[in-house]
Amino acid sequence: MAALRSVVGDAGLLTEAADRAAFESDWRRLRSNPALCIVLPRSTAEVAAVMRLCADAGIAVVPQGGNTGLVAGAVPVADAPQIVLSLRRMAAIRTVDPDDDSLVVEAGATLVAVQEAAAKVDRLFPLSLASEGTAQIGGLVSTNAGGLQVLAYGSMRALVLGLEVVLPNGRVWNGLSTLRKDNTGLDLKHLFVGTEGTLGIVTAACLRLFPAIRRRATAFVGVVDVAAATALFRAAQARAAGALTMCEFVAGDAMRLVARRVADARPPFEAPAYVLLELSSPDPDAPLDRTLEALLEEALEAERAMDAVIAQSERERLQLLRLREEISEAELAEGGAVKHDIAVPLSRIAETVAAIEDLVAERFPGCRPNIFGHLGDGNLHVNVLPPEGRTVSDLGDLYGTITEAVEALAVARQGTFSAEHGVGQMRAASLARFKDPVDLDLMRTVKHALDPAGRLNPGKILRAEGTIPRDGASSGR
Amino acid sequence: MAALRSVVGDAGLLTEAADRAAFESDWRRLRSNPALCIVLPRSTAEVAAVMRLCADAGIAVVPQGGNTGLVAGAVPVADAPQIVLSLRRMAAIRTVDPDDDSLVVEAGATLVAVQEAAAKVDRLFPLSLASEGTAQIGGLVSTNAGGLQVLAYGSMRALVLGLEVVLPNGRVWNGLSTLRKDNTGLDLKHLFVGTEGTLGIVTAACLRLFPAIRRRATAFVGVVDVAAATALFRAAQARAAGALTMCEFVAGDAMRLVARRVADARPPFEAPAYVLLELSSPDPDAPLDRTLEALLEEALEAERAMDAVIAQSERERLQLLRLREEISEAELAEGGAVKHDIAVPLSRIAETVAAIEDLVAERFPGCRPNIFGHLGDGNLHVNVLPPEGRTVSDLGDLYGTITEAVEALAVARQGTFSAEHGVGQMRAASLARFKDPVDLDLMRTVKHALDPAGRLNPGKILRAEGTIPRDGASSGR
Repeated sequence: MAALRSVVGDAGLLTEAADRAAFESDWRRLRSNPALCIVLPRSTAEVAAVMRLCADAGIAVVPQGGNTGLVAGAVPVADAPQIVLSLRRMAAIRTVDPDDDSLVVEAGATLVAVQEAAAKVDRLFPLSLASEGTAQIGGLVSTNAGGLQVLAYGSMRALVLGLEVVLPNGRVWNGLSTLRKDNTGLDLKHLFVGTEGTLGIVTAACLRLFPAIRRRATAFVGVVDVAAATALFRAAQARAAGALTMCEFVAGDAMRLVARRVADARPPFEAPAYVLLELSSPDPDAPLDRTLEALLEEALEAERAMDAVIAQSERERLQLLRLREEISEAELAEGGAVKHDIAVPLSRIAETVAAIEDLVAERFPGCRPNIFGHLGDGNLHVNVLPPEGRTVSDLGDLYGTITEAVEALAVARQGTFSAEHGVGQMRAASLARFKDPVDLDLMRTVKHALDPAGRLNPGKILRAEGTIPRDGASSGR
Repeated sequence: MAALRSVVGDAGLLTEAADRAAFESDWRRLRSNPALCIVLPRSTAEVAAVMRLCADAGIAVVPQGGNTGLVAGAVPVADAPQIVLSLRRMAAIRTVDPDDDSLVVEAGATLVAVQEAAAKVDRLFPLSLASEGTAQIGGLVSTNAGGLQVLAYGSMRALVLGLEVVLPNGRVWNGLSTLRKDNTGLDLKHLFVGTEGTLGIVTAACLRLFPAIRRRATAFVGVVDVAAATALFRAAQARAAGALTMCEFVAGDAMRLVARRVADARPPFEAPAYVLLELSSPDPDAPLDRTLEALLEEALEAERAMDAVIAQSERERLQLLRLREEISEAELAEGGAVKHDIAVPLSRIAETVAAIEDLVAERFPGCRPNIFGHLGDGNLHVNVLPPEGRTVSDLGDLYGTITEAVEALAVARQGTFSAEHGVGQMRAASLARFKDPVDLDLMRTVKHALDPAGRLNPGKILRAEGTIPRDGASSGR
């Protein structure tokens, strides 16, 4: 402890239970375990020194960003001597280079801080998600965060040009390149994007910027069914191509829940399902309204769409976006939900939604599916509400049974049990259940090669039991 | 040999020197070494069986696709018992799914075959490069191939949804996912994209399709200098965004070389430098001509552009593209060139071109820089022609000295010595020279973890000497 204090200073070490508490529980309060202390370094060199001290002392390190994750990936596990290493005091934006369309930022900066730094030089950083005011860059990289504009700009992986990472042995990998192309062997950044701090601690990132948006056209469309929603997406893609920057799906029941539970959030018309479409462009003269109108006319004529509104002002636009954003709030007001984050191939979305509805009706009578998500990515948040008048905690063992059934349904359709939320502790059992043994062996082999003693973020993604075979995937057949 | 024959059949095993020759030399005839035999499996199971036999016999395996690479990455090295494993008999397109915008193809299919299969279902597979009639998918994945449309669609890495790979131990990793989002631990495909067959043999890939292109606008622009070329690129990006699908740079001298050496290839006007711009869209009504005209008017008014032509027909478009494509042919006619493939940050392109010109004038008098490339990616092919009337082979030791100097110049500007061609044998010394020790240790650690005996494509990327430390990056500090 004294050694840690000498590295990070008095203000960088929290040892009292009351000070530690906020770092020891995840955002959803699903997992809470004690840490020896919370360490808050101010520089990459301090992170490296902390990592070396912990390695020598046989203590595990749990890197933590904004702690907004949904799978308990950045908080301690049970029964391990561990510290939480918070990056929040490393929040500098090191450089912003509009001529190079790049920005170098430390891990602890929030997503909003990066969006604002980009906007100041007339550029766009396109990642956008509900927790953007709190979520930090290091966590967003380590979880390969998604959100609302993945369709056009990709998830965090596509936005990372380079990384700076402290390795489990305390060495620093400086990979802060701004290059668009570099074919010189294994592209090391992909070892750290999406691996939730199990292979290294991201301390800084070089991010890709885009031209600022100067024109938008946003529509809220009622469609006759889920198949019509996917048909509308395809048509929008064919007509608007790169200008289609958002395509969200909301099931009719989810929209009605919002209308019932959230004040001033009411869809302009009734429909079996809804699609929220946004086109955007850096060209202020881009005829996006015309494109959107043509698209909607076509959908109305083909009887795929029933009704549609196009936002006539930024105020109206935000009202439409809010209909989608308030779903989580409405769920809370209704007693919570068993949450899932599946993806399926684009061609199987309609079939999957129907299968989920059948599944819940047959196996979990009284429960109510609440489905919405990122249509263009094939990514559905298939949440399940408890029966009317009950809360999620009333579900008891049914909670896990519902999750198993929903995830299995997605995986059986060549889908995944975690599209954008990651694995952490909450989905580690799903990973063990659904992944092929060769996949698991490859992951374990790389984990063992980089972190043989298992010092970094133990119990996340790969579970402790049998995660580190002596011989790796390479020697066994 | 008998064991191999029993796996792949008589037609799948070439042992005579005359039959082996074409597989033992790279396309540029820069490296030629003998293989024990050439093995041509017909299925993933056969590839796995061959890999296991070779592992047991202590023989190395050199995977080979179309053998069109420029760095001798797919041919044998000296002094190693090795076979060449050619994927050319595995060329099936397994599935094409326009509703899912995806296609599953075996490693031996050519890029043109994939482009055509996509076009048949009214989709685009956007990768496009000079060798597309011969280059094979497995090689294109393993080298993370780039080409003309990286700007809009990314290089091969961005186009791969999933892979099937035979591992060094003969196990098969089936990662043929079509999902757009899947955050379930280490994204294993990135271990194999761009690692040139040193970590696994790609046997099939699931590729991403896009809406077919229905409208194009193409311009050939004369600019006053290199800074004006990059300014034109920025303006095009801000105006056309996703519709900007090509932005190529040709230095004035390179254009004049084409005019002098290639029949019927003459630029429509003289200029210090040229930019080839193309906008394209799946929307047949997209007003691309208007966007392009506005862009060019602006550049002419700002005195960045001197003159410009817009193609009025597909024939005129192909003529304009040909001016760029014929550069390599013109170099050959002029006696060849010392070829390089550097990238620098977008903001440093003009400075880099000037520095190259100074470098050649000062240190290699008589030699002539011949510069062109993918402007929007910061990727320049900085080739150097021998003095007038001489050939590249007359350069002798100067060849290597020129390469060292050009690569060092790029690296000193936060650039890379290999933007899209890879490392192979030809750039392995550059990798050892320019990469940080931490980078090299991480690459060696992963190589050793997956292929501890060094059976897969030895001598590529990482050189044999000291590539496999016993303890890896994790234990040393």
